[in-house]
Amino acid sequence: MYQLYYYPNNASLAPHFLLHHMGLDYELILVDKSSNSQKSSDYLKLNPAGRIPTLVDDGHAIFESPAICIHLCEQHPGHQLIPELGTPERASFFQWLAYLNNTLQAELMVRYYPHRHTNDEKTIPNVVAAQDERIADSLRIIDEQLSKGKYLIGDKITACDYFLFMLAEWSLLIEKSPLTFSNLGAYLKHLAANKTIKSVCKMEGMDLSLFESYE
Amino acid sequence: MYQLYYYPNNASLAPHFLLHHMGLDYELILVDKSSNSQKSSDYLKLNPAGRIPTLVDDGHAIFESPAICIHLCEQHPGHQLIPELGTPERASFFQWLAYLNNTLQAELMVRYYPHRHTNDEKTIPNVVAAQDERIADSLRIIDEQLSKGKYLIGDKITACDYFLFMLAEWSLLIEKSPLTFSNLGAYLKHLAANKTIKSVCKMEGMDLSLFESYE
Repeated sequence: MYQLYYYPNNASLAPHFLLHHMGLDYELILVDKSSNSQKSSDYLKLNPAGRIPTLVDDGHAIFESPAICIHLCEQHPGHQLIPELGTPERASFFQWLAYLNNTLQAELMVRYYPHRHTNDEKTIPNVVAAQDERIADSLRIIDEQLSKGKYLIGDKITACDYFLFMLAEWSLLIEKSPLTFSNLGAYLKHLAANKTIKSVCKMEGMDLSLFESYE
Repeated sequence: MYQLYYYPNNASLAPHFLLHHMGLDYELILVDKSSNSQKSSDYLKLNPAGRIPTLVDDGHAIFESPAICIHLCEQHPGHQLIPELGTPERASFFQWLAYLNNTLQAELMVRYYPHRHTNDEKTIPNVVAAQDERIADSLRIIDEQLSKGKYLIGDKITACDYFLFMLAEWSLLIEKSPLTFSNLGAYLKHLAANKTIKSVCKMEGMDLSLFESYE
């Protein structure tokens, strides 16, 4: 039994997709961001960075969304959500997971929490404008990769696709929507019909109609 | 034979440490950042993100520094720079590698390239000041982890330590130096005497005297 400390449509979403996809036995524990519970002393014992998510696996706490994804994939290799050791696809998997996490996700965080990255409130719009461009640049690189295959790593779905779907959902409000990129837009529309994504988003109270109605 | 596309004291440093530590056969290929070669059409074919490093392994290009580190560790498991599958240490390894990459490294990038994150040059000092605080917060979390063991993941050196040494070197000019944290400072001084780190830094023309002279 796993415990996933989560908040709806937060970085816990990708691990939640994986737990559901693999049919694992898990319990969801809400970390109430609205009351800043991720900075409570109890939570900081599990996750000293004070961020969501944390996965507890048999008493062992693991934080960082990509690390939780890798852990679940490696523990349950039969689901093939991570390419096998020794294949070129495995290197691509780690490459794109790192890129998504350290670039698209990091740029989105600056975009949505700009006040953390300047000590003068008046300059927040300057940060937001710069970030919108940087996020569009990153989506362009991902769009190009998606011209090569049905999924991010060739023609089989991996944890990277669930991770990308999460970040793309966060990007819908950015000046240049991910849905306006030809490969990425079609890919996201296809993923929005994926059974796991539909079920988990429903559980988390998320609305996927923007993806579904996209032409 | 590996080819590492590098630039001195860039994100290629961690993979360079690993190639040297493992005694692998590799060729260094300079990507001349001073003439923006990382954005040349030839380089973009290897690495569409246009960043350093890229590793070419038997004709297959891999980008993203943490992904290259994981790839080398998994290809050469005998060197034990990544914990074995199925151990709790392995989850910690991915957790800290992700944290270093998506937090400390990402915050450092905003700190050193603030003009990319605002569309008004006059606001650059506001961004820099905010980043210095965020980097200190991140170093504090790492310092706390280092109270638990000799290295980041227990008492054995892993690729995470080489990755952290690279980022700590980049942090030396930040308002609160990593050397001023008690566990982290002692750890870095110890690592600065590591044979691989000394040799590779010498090859890359880096000066480690600040670490060595630290009391």
